[in-house]
Amino acid sequence: MENELLRYISQFPALTEEEITEIADNIPVQTFKKGTILLKEGDTADICFFVLKGCVRQYHLVDDEEKTTAFFTEEQAVVSFASYSQQLPSKHYWSCVEDSVLVVGSLNYEQEMYQKFPKLAAITRALMEQDFGKTQSALVAFMSSSPEERYRKLLTDRPDLFGRAPQHQIASYLGVTPESLSRIRKRIFVKK
Amino acid sequence: MENELLRYISQFPALTEEEITEIADNIPVQTFKKGTILLKEGDTADICFFVLKGCVRQYHLVDDEEKTTAFFTEEQAVVSFASYSQQLPSKHYWSCVEDSVLVVGSLNYEQEMYQKFPKLAAITRALMEQDFGKTQSALVAFMSSSPEERYRKLLTDRPDLFGRAPQHQIASYLGVTPESLSRIRKRIFVKK
Repeated sequence: MENELLRYISQFPALTEEEITEIADNIPVQTFKKGTILLKEGDTADICFFVLKGCVRQYHLVDDEEKTTAFFTEEQAVVSFASYSQQLPSKHYWSCVEDSVLVVGSLNYEQEMYQKFPKLAAITRALMEQDFGKTQSALVAFMSSSPEERYRKLLTDRPDLFGRAPQHQIASYLGVTPESLSRIRKRIFVKK
Repeated sequence: MENELLRYISQFPALTEEEITEIADNIPVQTFKKGTILLKEGDTADICFFVLKGCVRQYHLVDDEEKTTAFFTEEQAVVSFASYSQQLPSKHYWSCVEDSVLVVGSLNYEQEMYQKFPKLAAITRALMEQDFGKTQSALVAFMSSSPEERYRKLLTDRPDLFGRAPQHQIASYLGVTPESLSRIRKRIFVKK
């Protein structure tokens, strides 16, 4: 997995080859089994993750039912800023949908790394702005779309998810019951 | 309005009094009349704003109807990172719901300010993380709530909005028709 990490870090032209190797050597990478709970509702997360390989699901309980609110896959950051930066109790769980290889970040170590590699602060800031933009877009998209539109968008943007996560979790993520999702699918495939 | 700006900047203990005055002197503040369009769909925004006083609405057109997706009020940043940081065309409009006094930020000037006041980069990063956390929470909340729950939350979190923005814009923001919003209100006030 060090290769994935090296490849990812190599894309930043601000870094010299030496820095790339050194940074990769200093970043903790861990493998987690499918089903591992990385964070629990109510815990204060001083850690965050970055997916090198695998899939992490975010969910919380509503009347004992799991409501899925995110799937994180390759090259996505798994961070809950309210919990990570502001140290508020987490409002959700993170659980591995597959065996997953993740970069494990922590608040203290992040600061240490910025001291050691000052360029990293600017790089992660740019990445955060990119991620923030995506979350803003996701919010706007969710606010202004129907479940069928959301399903079509997911099918286009992240088709792999359908093979990786169980149907009922995807239905929950789209804001519909598994039965409604089946109906939407039928409707779309009949139209085709 | 310089007072509002000074008061806001003064809350950061990392800054000396001298820095606070100097930064406030160097930040451009502008007044915009109610109805001013600050950004149009399709434009690439190299500017962003911060509300010192007033209210800015974010919306886009769906079949010629305005779909409201955000209201920004005092001490909120008005930034669309996909457009600002990645220079993609904006997917929405920003328009002043009231006469508004705004800090006007631009990409180049931001970098210039960081060079002049290096502490500012860390401060704005922390603010961005806070904001990012709120956007993440808003997405999760929107995904897992009914229009009635959203209405109740808005009533608790931002009661002022109801006196500041027209009813139909608030209905759009909550994802319901103005008629449904009236029904929800009646239901709630009868229950009380």
